[in-house]
Order: sequence, then C-alpha cells, then structure tokens
Amino acid sequence: MVFQYSLIASCTKTRARAGVFSTPHGEVETPRFMPVGTVGTVKGITPAQLQSAHAQMILGNTYHLHIQPGEEIIEKAGGLHNFMGWQQPILTDSGGFQVFSLADLRQITDDGVKFRSPKDGRIINMTPENSIRIQNSLGADVIMAFDECPPATATKEEVVKAVKRTTAWLERCISAHKKPEQQALFGIVQGGIYPELRTQSAKELIEFNLPGYAIGGVSVGEKPELIHQIVQWTTPLLPSNKPRYLMGVGSYKEMVVAIASGIDLFDCVIPTRLGRHGAALVQGERINLKNAQYKEDFTPLDPECDCYTCKNFTRAYLNHLIRAKEMLGYILLSLHNIYELINFTRKIRQAIINDSFVEEFGHYLN
Amino acid sequence: MVFQYSLIASCTKTRARAGVFSTPHGEVETPRFMPVGTVGTVKGITPAQLQSAHAQMILGNTYHLHIQPGEEIIEKAGGLHNFMGWQQPILTDSGGFQVFSLADLRQITDDGVKFRSPKDGRIINMTPENSIRIQNSLGADVIMAFDECPPATATKEEVVKAVKRTTAWLERCISAHKKPEQQALFGIVQGGIYPELRTQSAKELIEFNLPGYAIGGVSVGEKPELIHQIVQWTTPLLPSNKPRYLMGVGSYKEMVVAIASGIDLFDCVIPTRLGRHGAALVQGERINLKNAQYKEDFTPLDPECDCYTCKNFTRAYLNHLIRAKEMLGYILLSLHNIYELINFTRKIRQAIINDSFVEEFGHYLN
Ligand SMILES: [Zn+2]
Ligand SMILES: [Zn+2]
Repeated sequence: MVFQYSLIASCTKTRARAGVFSTPHGEVETPRFMPVGTVGTVKGITPAQLQSAHAQMILGNTYHLHIQPGEEIIEKAGGLHNFMGWQQPILTDSGGFQVFSLADLRQITDDGVKFRSPKDGRIINMTPENSIRIQNSLGADVIMAFDECPPATATKEEVVKAVKRTTAWLERCISAHKKPEQQALFGIVQGGIYPELRTQSAKELIEFNLPGYAIGGVSVGEKPELIHQIVQWTTPLLPSNKPRYLMGVGSYKEMVVAIASGIDLFDCVIPTRLGRHGAALVQGERINLKNAQYKEDFTPLDPECDCYTCKNFTRAYLNHLIRAKEMLGYILLSLHNIYELINFTRKIRQAIINDSFVEEFGHYLN
Repeated sequence: MVFQYSLIASCTKTRARAGVFSTPHGEVETPRFMPVGTVGTVKGITPAQLQSAHAQMILGNTYHLHIQPGEEIIEKAGGLHNFMGWQQPILTDSGGFQVFSLADLRQITDDGVKFRSPKDGRIINMTPENSIRIQNSLGADVIMAFDECPPATATKEEVVKAVKRTTAWLERCISAHKKPEQQALFGIVQGGIYPELRTQSAKELIEFNLPGYAIGGVSVGEKPELIHQIVQWTTPLLPSNKPRYLMGVGSYKEMVVAIASGIDLFDCVIPTRLGRHGAALVQGERINLKNAQYKEDFTPLDPECDCYTCKNFTRAYLNHLIRAKEMLGYILLSLHNIYELINFTRKIRQAIINDSFVEEFGHYLN
C-alpha cells in the first residue's frame, strides 16, 4: 500500500527502528539518509551514480525550482521525476526554510511571505496554498507543509507565534493539496528549543493524521546538545506508525542520536557541499584532500568503502584533481560523500535488524 | 603482437581504411576519435563514463602533467593508467605544441625550449630528451616525438628550419627512449603548407621505421581547405603498415576528408570544451543549449544517439542545468559530445568495412 510505513525491527535498548516506507516510486528503507538535489540535480552527480550510491529518496527544493526553471516547465515535462531522470522516490520541501532565510527581502504576514525573486526581481507571494500548488506541479512522492521556521535567535514569543502559524498554515496546506493519493503531505513540528512548545506543536499536528511527520527548526544555528534534546523530546510524541523525518541533519553523531530516538529520515547538503570544496567524509571525519600530505598517498580515500571513487582512485589522484581545480575532483568526492552517509544509515539499519545497534553505534550516544 | 597495425578493410573508392592497432593496454579500432584528458582527466567525465562512450585510446598532455602534478608522482602511482584509473590505451603528446604556444615565455634553440612555468615561475628546459624522459615516466602506450610546431603565420624559412629541427630532434628522441617495448614512439611530420617540405619531412621521418606517424602543424589557424590539402598530400607518403594520426582535428568534415586520405586517429578538445560552454554537437552541428528555444523542448538532445545523456534527459532539462550553471549540465553535454565524435568514427569504420564509405559519407568530401 502506498505511503504505508511498515516496521521491520525495533532496537530493544533504544527507540531505534528499522522500517520500510512505500511511495508511488518505490520503497524507502529506513533509517535512510536522503541526498539533496536542490534545483533538480544532486550537484555534479548523475542519476546512475546516485543509484550506485544506493540513494532511494532524494530531495528537491521547491523554492529553487519555482525560481528556476519554474514548476510549469517541470509539470509539462511530466513532473520532477521525468524532468531530472530519477524514477525513485522524491521529497520536496515547502520552500519555507529558504524563504525565511531571505532576511532582507521578505515580508511575513499571516497570509504568507512576500519576497523579491533574486533571479528577476519580481514579487513572489509564497503562501501555504502557493507552496502546495507548486509541489503538486512538481509531483514529488512526499511534499512538505509550508511552515514558519524561526531562527535560533528567535525569542520565545516569536516561537509561540511560529508554532501557531505553522498549525494554521498546515490546515490551509491540507485544503490546498490536490493529489493526496499520489503525494504524501508531511507536517513539520516547530517549537524551537522549548519542550512545551514542541509538545504543543506535535499534538496539534498529529490531529490531522498525516502520512508522515518532520521535525523542523533544528540545525538552524543552535548547539548540538540542544538539537539532541529537541529531537529526544519531540520524536516520541510523533505517531509510531508513520515515518519521522529530521530536517537538515546529516552528521554521524546527530543521526545516531536521532535514530536512537526513533527518527527514520535525514537530509543534508553537506556531502556535495564538502565535495565542491575538496573535502571528504571518511568514517565521519572530514579530511581536506588539497592538503600536501595526500600528494603521494596512493591509498584509497577510505579502504573500507565500496563506492566508485574508493574502488578506483587514490588520495594522490584526488589531491591532484582538487589542486588542478578539475571538475572530476568535485564529482568523485561528492560521490563518495553521498555514498558514505547513505551507507552509514544502511549499516545502522542492519544493526537495528540484528539488534546490535547499541553495541555497534552506542559510542556516538555518549 | 604489440604495436602492430592490422588492416581489416580498405575502401575501393578512396584511401580510407579500417584497421586495428594493438597496444599493451588493448586494441584501438581505427579510424577512431580519441578524447583528450589534459591533466589526467577528461574534463568532468569518469573513466566508467568514458568506457560507456566507447572510448578506446585517450590522450594525456605531457606539458600539463609535467607542470601538475609532475611525472614523479605519476610514476610512483605506477604510471598514468593507474593514476587516473584508465586501463585502456593512452597516448601522450610531447608537450611541444603547448610549449611553442607560450609566445612570451619561451626561448627556442637547437637544444630545445626554455620557458617559465606558469605555475611556480621556475625555468623549465624542454628538450627532446626531457620530453621523452617525462613520457617514459608517464608510461602511455603511445608517446610522441618532441617536434617544432610553427604557427600558421610562420615564413617558409621558419618552416624549413622547423622541419630540419624536427628530424634532428626525432633522432635524439629515439636515443632517449628507454621503453620501446612498452611505449610506441610516433614521429610527427611538419612542413607547414608547403608540399615539398611535407614530402621532405615525411621522407626523413619514415627512415626511422617508427611504429606510427602523425601529421602535426595543422589546425594551427590555417583555412580548412589548406588542412585538406596538407592531409591529402602528406598521408599517402606515410607507411601503410603503420597507424597514421592527424593531430588536433575533430570536426566531421575534416575527419571524413582525412579518413578518405588514409588517416586512422584523431584527437580534439572540442567535445569537452563545447560541453563546458553549454553547447552540444548534434549530427556534427553545434547547438547552444542555453537558447530559449530549448526551454520546453522535451525531446532528447539527439533522438538517434544512444549515449547516456540522450537516453535519459531532454533538451529542456539540459537548458535548465546550463542556465542554472549546474555542473551536471556540463557533464552531460561533454559526455554526449565525446560519444558523438567517437560514434561518428565508429560508423565510418563500419562503412569502410561494408565498402559503403563514399555512399554514406561522400557528401562531406565535396
Ligand atoms: Zn568511498
Ligand atoms: Zn547523445
């Protein structure tokens, strides 16, 4: 059945769980890291390479795709899957996160957010209705509610307001949603660093009985310990028969902590961003391939990694490509980084199934 | 047998021929277009993608690899094949072409060329011995003699001098060559636009009984008709039991004219250079994917092409990627362009075998 979350195994020592989430474009085995394909491309990576990295669900950014090329073109192409040549699951965000980051350009009201397009200067009115209309045109398997995501510096009063608005906007998103059979609408819990506001937000949202829920407003500049607390507090409030998605988080420790609380899905731009800057994630540690120490290092980036990059090239070659500013360097590093994060969540999933999650990954929990 | 050229079929109406050239890293079916991998990477393309485009022999540039990362590192890596992860044939040029293009930086004597490294300013003395020493370290299957390549504006006296120097330098290249069993040294015919100088150069060079010959000093700024004349004049002077390589040529018409004269190998940077500028070669014609006419063109780049790009993406998607300045746009266009040129020479080869070369490709000869 489409949009069903099936529990496969539960950790006996934590709330970690392994599951399968069904979508019209196939299943997503959870926990799973999802690569980000901002404007209809995971930067520098072909769909075939994404598949080789075991990507299942990938992200598209509604804000970016609305600005360029515009949802009309993607709809005419038969939707984002056809447009970008990715026939596996896709999730689009609501555009809210980007819109709220445009500090100088925006005007926020209860109706939505007005801002100037950075591309052509025209005024764009992003509302819950508009976000859902765009996401319906894009046609992703999972679409996100248009929420208010306050910055880490927001006052409690501002967070209270954001929680209220997020619930009101969710109601409008649900009314605007034209394709609930083909596209699962996920709600986003807000509430900043305040447990009582997170609780209130979660309680209000689960009333709508949506096919999935996300925790938003984390990883917006607060300390890692605070992220952990928010996630540990909020996750158990979400229904156990639905997928749970922690937005914008993709580091080893944060993912393990979140999985231990019952999170299923993650996304982060870090693998391709690091790759474009000549850096790699190796066993969760960042290394800068431009460093002179790698000039004559004829070992793979990660000898234990089975990705295309690690199976075929050395650190010395990557060092050369990065120093020569060759595109292939960014490509090969991005490819490894994506593989690395996806594979990390795949290994965790297997450990949960084997009930060895705490033995294998417990050191991240301290 | 290594470095043997075997004739498979000859056109009955032209000098066109289909053959197989054996190298330590496999066979090259000729005629064949060779993609250029300047600094140990065909820009933006992985070795796996190169294979999918049916690349057989690819080029490396000695000048660029000497400057960065330096042949010592590549030799320590086990040679250029291992360094860049390409286990099929490689050809390295001598560095001469690049060195002679450094107009302001060089000082040419009978010994060789002195110039300042554009990377770190140190003085580099490129001589026949030095070029061969570097190419021995790089370990390509085919290495090129260090020749003097005069510009199209050179006077006849300058070309006379270049022909003389090229022969003298070839003798020094042969003496310096340490690995004739593993690396085939090709001589390069010079002589500019003067038939008698081309004849003299060819006659002097074939005395050395080398495993292959190239025609150099074309495509340096002269008119296409002159390229045709030089090639038509010079090619029949080269031994028929050796591969013949026309350097730096990669357009449809020029390749067909050259093949009709008996040329076997081509190289050109055009496919990746065009790709990086958002342009594609479609049936030999350039199209600029950034043009607004492709915004809603949901057809493949070339419906008759079997490359990864044409099988999976539309012109509208490529238009979007190029407009958004996304790396994947350059990658997909470069991949198609490489496939296109290689496939063009593959189709010509098949036509020669079928003795339908003139029927199928004769319109390029007018
Ligand atoms: Zn790897
Ligand atoms: Zn193609």
